[in-house]
Amino acid sequence: MKKILLFLLVFSSTIAWAQQKKYVLVIHGGAGTILKKNMTPEKEKAYKAALEEALAAGEAILKKGGTAVDAVTAAVTILEDCPLFNAGKGSVFTNAGENEMDAAIMDGKRLQAGSVAGVKTIKNPITAARAVMYKSEHVMMTGRGAEAFAALQGCTIVSPNYFYTEERWKSLQKAKAEADTASRRIQSIIPDHAAVKQPGNRDYKYGTVGAVALDQYGNVAAATSTGGMTNKKYGRVGDAPIIGSGTYANNATCAVSCTGWGEYYIRLVMAKTISDRMEWGKQSLSTAATDMIMKQLPALGGDGGLIAVDKQGNYVMIFCTEGMYRGVITSDGKKEIGIYKE
Amino acid sequence: MKKILLFLLVFSSTIAWAQQKKYVLVIHGGAGTILKKNMTPEKEKAYKAALEEALAAGEAILKKGGTAVDAVTAAVTILEDCPLFNAGKGSVFTNAGENEMDAAIMDGKRLQAGSVAGVKTIKNPITAARAVMYKSEHVMMTGRGAEAFAALQGCTIVSPNYFYTEERWKSLQKAKAEADTASRRIQSIIPDHAAVKQPGNRDYKYGTVGAVALDQYGNVAAATSTGGMTNKKYGRVGDAPIIGSGTYANNATCAVSCTGWGEYYIRLVMAKTISDRMEWGKQSLSTAATDMIMKQLPALGGDGGLIAVDKQGNYVMIFCTEGMYRGVITSDGKKEIGIYKE
Repeated sequence: MKKILLFLLVFSSTIAWAQQKKYVLVIHGGAGTILKKNMTPEKEKAYKAALEEALAAGEAILKKGGTAVDAVTAAVTILEDCPLFNAGKGSVFTNAGENEMDAAIMDGKRLQAGSVAGVKTIKNPITAARAVMYKSEHVMMTGRGAEAFAALQGCTIVSPNYFYTEERWKSLQKAKAEADTASRRIQSIIPDHAAVKQPGNRDYKYGTVGAVALDQYGNVAAATSTGGMTNKKYGRVGDAPIIGSGTYANNATCAVSCTGWGEYYIRLVMAKTISDRMEWGKQSLSTAATDMIMKQLPALGGDGGLIAVDKQGNYVMIFCTEGMYRGVITSDGKKEIGIYKE
Repeated sequence: MKKILLFLLVFSSTIAWAQQKKYVLVIHGGAGTILKKNMTPEKEKAYKAALEEALAAGEAILKKGGTAVDAVTAAVTILEDCPLFNAGKGSVFTNAGENEMDAAIMDGKRLQAGSVAGVKTIKNPITAARAVMYKSEHVMMTGRGAEAFAALQGCTIVSPNYFYTEERWKSLQKAKAEADTASRRIQSIIPDHAAVKQPGNRDYKYGTVGAVALDQYGNVAAATSTGGMTNKKYGRVGDAPIIGSGTYANNATCAVSCTGWGEYYIRLVMAKTISDRMEWGKQSLSTAATDMIMKQLPALGGDGGLIAVDKQGNYVMIFCTEGMYRGVITSDGKKEIGIYKE
């Protein structure tokens, strides 16, 4: 009898240990009209290498028993530093010719969260969001105030010129020219709308990086960072820095990071809705995410994608656009990097 | 048989008409340590008169068949104009000695939403949030960009001096003195925290106005407006302008406007969670709101209150603080104004 009990004890401890060792990291580099025909082999290789590097940095932390928050911070920092993605270095330009960034992070363990919006001098906005989360009483800080706080907390401050890239500058010029043409066309029909509506290339709306992780202790975390929308005006803020919309994490359910047409994600309170459908509607992560991205989002007129991981380690990388830069790595040895639709 | 059919037809039409005519308006002027012993009869009378005026303005619209959005806009505009409340005229001062306001509005019919954060020159921030909702492609605008947009849309622009009130200015001086004392005390123990933490009077965190309504067509809407937190730094943004946290409306469920310690409302994504518990957990509005305000919010360490109305016209005015300025008026002739706990 004692032997059996001892065996059961050892056996159940082993299971607990095996479960505890599980980790998952999922990342994205934005969703949009990403088509193979528009991509050169060199560019594709560069994107994949950057995604690979971000996965490796995050996994190194998870593997040695680091936290989900540390892993998503590390992965997003690398994506921010890569000029290919619209976040940190590589951020798009506003109408005023500036780079204005937003970022958010959430720790599912204690529902702690931090975000910054409209910052122009913080090299890695995700580190500022993290400082807001752990080192202030606040959740969200904006503009110069957020920059002052980040500086006090030791975040690297750079000149706004650091964020300049020629490709994004050209995109702004193109967007402005297109907006002018569209504006003249609309103004001839509805004069009032001309100053406000920003028609033209839908893809100007996209571009975000993000990561979600489950660590060996069962904690989930989410992080999102973006340079916003090319040619944006009026201090527009998208979903990325809005806790509940672009970013959310809760150990009881899941962690979510979104990318897409931000306005629709805010109106749907996308990330928290996924969590609530799991918590209150008893839906699986996959069911909740599929319905929200493939049905509710297009029904309102929006599009985009999201990544998420639940407390059991189930994950999704889902989008209703042509493509989404994405990657996943798990403790089971699974590793996958993707760009286009399958 | 024909007679019976005709009777049924008339009878059911009458029910439909009677149901259609139902409307409800609920307002709040902030939750906090509001105690009868600290109130003069004159001040109490002034608060009640302002709440009464806001209810009357909103009801006049609902009674004649106006929309929920128009009703909440009218009610909140009056509360913004009243210097007694921390929104619009009467807003508290930031650490820099400025009045920096946030507001949000949501139309439950089409899940349209608009918000502004950190604005200093818009007389009625709720009208700017409304312009963002109906006259732009965006949901959230901040700072000078939001002000420029509001001006283009015909919102009344005033000098920042318009928002000066002596009482709020004195509150700032008091808060600064208390923060200095607390900071020195904390700095002697934990030097790093002194620049960041803002201990002292909890009530500096409160003060918001809001309204929710159900109109005769079954639409719900929510609006919230605030001057933020006395002595706030770093461009802090609270829950009021965050769709899903301080403000949310959905014809399928309810409309919610929150007031309280904003950081906790953001972390809980308060308003959307109430809606999701109804939609996915099949909870009543009352059950959802009671659990969130009386249990989940204090469990995290926060406090405050909220008002909400569901699509059937059920409403709540709930808070876990000493008091909440509040009022309700319905098509059934019910009218109630309250300040303290019952």
